[in-house]
Amino acid sequence: MKIGAHYLGNGECEFTVWSPTLNSVAVQILTPEQQVIPLKPQAEGYWQAKVSDVYPGTLYKYVVNDENAFADPASQYQPEGVHGPSQVVDHHFEWTDTAWTGISLESMIFYELHVGTFTPEGNFTAIIPRLADLRELGINAIEIMPISQFPGDTHIEASLAYRNWGYDGVYPFAVQNSYGSPADLKQLVNACHEHGIAVVLDVVYNHFGPEGNYTGQFAPYFTKTYKTPWGNALNFDDALSQGVRNYFIENALYWLREFHIDALRLDAIQAIYDLGAKHFLWELAEAVHSFSQGQTWKRHLIAESDLNNPQIIRPPELGGYGIDAQWSDDFHHSLHALLTGDRQGYYEDYGQCADLAKAYQDTFVYDWKYAPHRKRFHGITCRDRPLSQFVICIQNHDQIGNQMKGDRLWQRLSFEGLKLAAGAVLLSPYLPLLFMGEEYGETAPFMYFVSHSDFDLIQAVRAGRKEEFAAFHYDEDPPDPESAETFLRCKLNWQLRNEGQHKVLLDWHRQLINLRKSHPVLLNQDRNSIHATSDEDKQLVIVRRWCESTELVFAM
Amino acid sequence: MKIGAHYLGNGECEFTVWSPTLNSVAVQILTPEQQVIPLKPQAEGYWQAKVSDVYPGTLYKYVVNDENAFADPASQYQPEGVHGPSQVVDHHFEWTDTAWTGISLESMIFYELHVGTFTPEGNFTAIIPRLADLRELGINAIEIMPISQFPGDTHIEASLAYRNWGYDGVYPFAVQNSYGSPADLKQLVNACHEHGIAVVLDVVYNHFGPEGNYTGQFAPYFTKTYKTPWGNALNFDDALSQGVRNYFIENALYWLREFHIDALRLDAIQAIYDLGAKHFLWELAEAVHSFSQGQTWKRHLIAESDLNNPQIIRPPELGGYGIDAQWSDDFHHSLHALLTGDRQGYYEDYGQCADLAKAYQDTFVYDWKYAPHRKRFHGITCRDRPLSQFVICIQNHDQIGNQMKGDRLWQRLSFEGLKLAAGAVLLSPYLPLLFMGEEYGETAPFMYFVSHSDFDLIQAVRAGRKEEFAAFHYDEDPPDPESAETFLRCKLNWQLRNEGQHKVLLDWHRQLINLRKSHPVLLNQDRNSIHATSDEDKQLVIVRRWCESTELVFAM
Repeated sequence: MKIGAHYLGNGECEFTVWSPTLNSVAVQILTPEQQVIPLKPQAEGYWQAKVSDVYPGTLYKYVVNDENAFADPASQYQPEGVHGPSQVVDHHFEWTDTAWTGISLESMIFYELHVGTFTPEGNFTAIIPRLADLRELGINAIEIMPISQFPGDTHIEASLAYRNWGYDGVYPFAVQNSYGSPADLKQLVNACHEHGIAVVLDVVYNHFGPEGNYTGQFAPYFTKTYKTPWGNALNFDDALSQGVRNYFIENALYWLREFHIDALRLDAIQAIYDLGAKHFLWELAEAVHSFSQGQTWKRHLIAESDLNNPQIIRPPELGGYGIDAQWSDDFHHSLHALLTGDRQGYYEDYGQCADLAKAYQDTFVYDWKYAPHRKRFHGITCRDRPLSQFVICIQNHDQIGNQMKGDRLWQRLSFEGLKLAAGAVLLSPYLPLLFMGEEYGETAPFMYFVSHSDFDLIQAVRAGRKEEFAAFHYDEDPPDPESAETFLRCKLNWQLRNEGQHKVLLDWHRQLINLRKSHPVLLNQDRNSIHATSDEDKQLVIVRRWCESTELVFAM
Repeated sequence: MKIGAHYLGNGECEFTVWSPTLNSVAVQILTPEQQVIPLKPQAEGYWQAKVSDVYPGTLYKYVVNDENAFADPASQYQPEGVHGPSQVVDHHFEWTDTAWTGISLESMIFYELHVGTFTPEGNFTAIIPRLADLRELGINAIEIMPISQFPGDTHIEASLAYRNWGYDGVYPFAVQNSYGSPADLKQLVNACHEHGIAVVLDVVYNHFGPEGNYTGQFAPYFTKTYKTPWGNALNFDDALSQGVRNYFIENALYWLREFHIDALRLDAIQAIYDLGAKHFLWELAEAVHSFSQGQTWKRHLIAESDLNNPQIIRPPELGGYGIDAQWSDDFHHSLHALLTGDRQGYYEDYGQCADLAKAYQDTFVYDWKYAPHRKRFHGITCRDRPLSQFVICIQNHDQIGNQMKGDRLWQRLSFEGLKLAAGAVLLSPYLPLLFMGEEYGETAPFMYFVSHSDFDLIQAVRAGRKEEFAAFHYDEDPPDPESAETFLRCKLNWQLRNEGQHKVLLDWHRQLINLRKSHPVLLNQDRNSIHATSDEDKQLVIVRRWCESTELVFAM
């Protein structure tokens, strides 16, 4: 069931909202003139009305039970932020990517970027001039951190007001107002496709942010059965869950259909609790693959999963959910622990050369092995899954941002260490992901930053961040996550890429990617064509990869 | 890891307890003389000591952190009830079932019984004289409702003090003291095997009862991540969960090894929350099947599951847990709704002849179909699973006891209706289960009864029971679950089986079972050898079953 304000053209708009437990719902048109039009109840708890004289740009809210008015849970735009009204969007757009046939999943080289800090302007439009550089580097897929409307400190000027990694979004269908309009995002995707670059969008289906979420006024979006790190879990398997499932499935299709997005990166799917017989991810994968079949290029789903469970990416006939690929942290953690010597926090479970060798050969280091940091057995083997179903990295927003000061490896490793790390990732048989700036050794940190308008929440976030790092016994406090300066310090210094060692590193990445794309051994992603061994005494990992009679040996 | 008091003979006993977060544990020997012996810490949070001069019958507790003393979480006997000390048990027993080779799962005909109400005496020993009758009826597997130590109102005489269905047990390894000793249970199993009857034991791995559970003093048995209908869920996937998993896996092996139990019926597995990569049920099934391989007869696991999810019973290579069989309620609910006209509560989701036809043919009526009572889509297809992996019934403890007055079908149906119901179950291709007394039309109800010693808990149980039935708008209150009279009224009237219509019904059951065991069509459990159709206008269900050139047609 399509939800939200669906602009039909000629001043006609269809409003649909899911509110199975309400007695009445009406749409309150706010501009140009105020009027309230009741919605009619439909099957399965939906309410609907076709309204005339409603043009794109019209602001509206929904009045529930003849009392208060709230923004649309499926709002496509929130020009005044999370607490303001929703806006009717016309999706007509002159696409020029008709020749686009997509990028095959197994050949993707991901480049993760955060819209707000990737450019000085911090919006969609400013990304476009950099696409040629990325393409020249060899990148064929940008992965955009979440862009659904999140809250901001609206007391200060707009370009600084909204500071968020994106995981605090509360309107999954609404393009973040400070990043641009829906049309601006389409312009970016269109330009990417013209540059031969696919667009992966990071979407969050496991929680809503802590400020500006009014979905509870409309329907039981939450269940009390499970707790997530962010409070009650979203309701994917309890009474009335079908409306919640539809909401997120429609969200996925919305990005693919209206914005030509190539793939969705599903945030932390371990917090999508669904113990029903048909997991939400399975239903989502069915819907996306069914949509994809009618399209001129294939769309993909990539899960961020902390479970080390191949069930996520197995086909349904083998009891899986049919997700196309998943992130695997074990590679990162093994390599990071060896390169940096870090052993605190989750790095406690890594640090042996044998771990990295296992990550190359078996993907999961933890395949029902006891993990001391988790204090439990973790994972199962995924050796039945192709190597091309796993995304790996040595830096990403989390791994950098979870360091207290947001240090990148540039601050941690020697220049030779950085080159080794790049080779380890880009010449691996997995799908590599670079974090913006990694390719030229960006010096700016990527710290945890947020901005809320709720004072208590601001204090709670600050306290939480301090507490998190207190466990590591650092001498100083972490940077203030609620400060605009913290955000500004994370902006990239794009000119560095042409300077000294930064330029050497950039060239190194370009050569590695070129090699990855052309060498027959590196193109071979067969799981039985790789063998890795290790020697703890010599601190050595040897990876052998082969293809027919050719063999490459990597020593680290 | 074996846990509990393991009597080694010659007055030597090894005590092992899992307490990963305690600073010290000591065993406090209470009889014949008091002494306290410290346990030594072992790997993975276990504590252990071998103690001399400890003979079977010795009472003991564990002193934790040099403070309070509690009964052993893995106690094998609680002669003074849930709040008393644990007792050392010698498992030596003169088994005479050496010729026993077990009953194959697909040929099992289950007879569910509750020890306390099956006989006037209400204990294990009193069951033995009735085995010949059951065997003569054709029963080849008795299924004993849970017998792990539960609380009782110890202010009254012993034979009446303990009244519980068994799902409030708090010592999974301890044979309920009011039912007899561990040796008495062995005597019963031994006698069953001599009569050619397998013994299925109902075990509860999804919660502890509300009174007398001291496990929290020893280790993190619970997690706050999930809520069950009985409070916080048991910890199967959180930090330190391996000790909890080991506790229940050792429990399963304990019953199979020491008591020669043939199969375990796992209570309500939908409340065993485990979102790790290797579900507890999978690990349990591996352990049981591995144990079974070294035995002269095969042991089985049968899950009670409300999930309509064949993942439970699929082999691991198809993404399943490898449980041997599962209960399926859809057959019962479809048939019950048609026979009685009940449409309240969960019967709201049933009542069409098409439902029963689908239950015969596809097993799950709800295979990702919207269930109005659940207010969500439910189940997925299980057509890849053999019919012999499903246990069905028209009466069981829950379906009778969940009626306000514990009415059996004898009170609800005509005599012809009872005969029809028996035929529908016993001539189905699934594994049939009868509830004690069903075979001769027992007139005693089977009501919900409990007995606690905690006054607040007693009041809460009473109030809860009233509230449960208030929703059904009955005119009267339900029988008092905490009253001894309620319990006594549930005792079987075994002599009825030789009287009038009761005898006719008993003979009818015997003939049906005989037919089931001998007719080639009825022995054929192939899913593609059954076809069911229905006609709502004529209130008719037609089931065709065949085998080679022979076909049977059942019209209901």
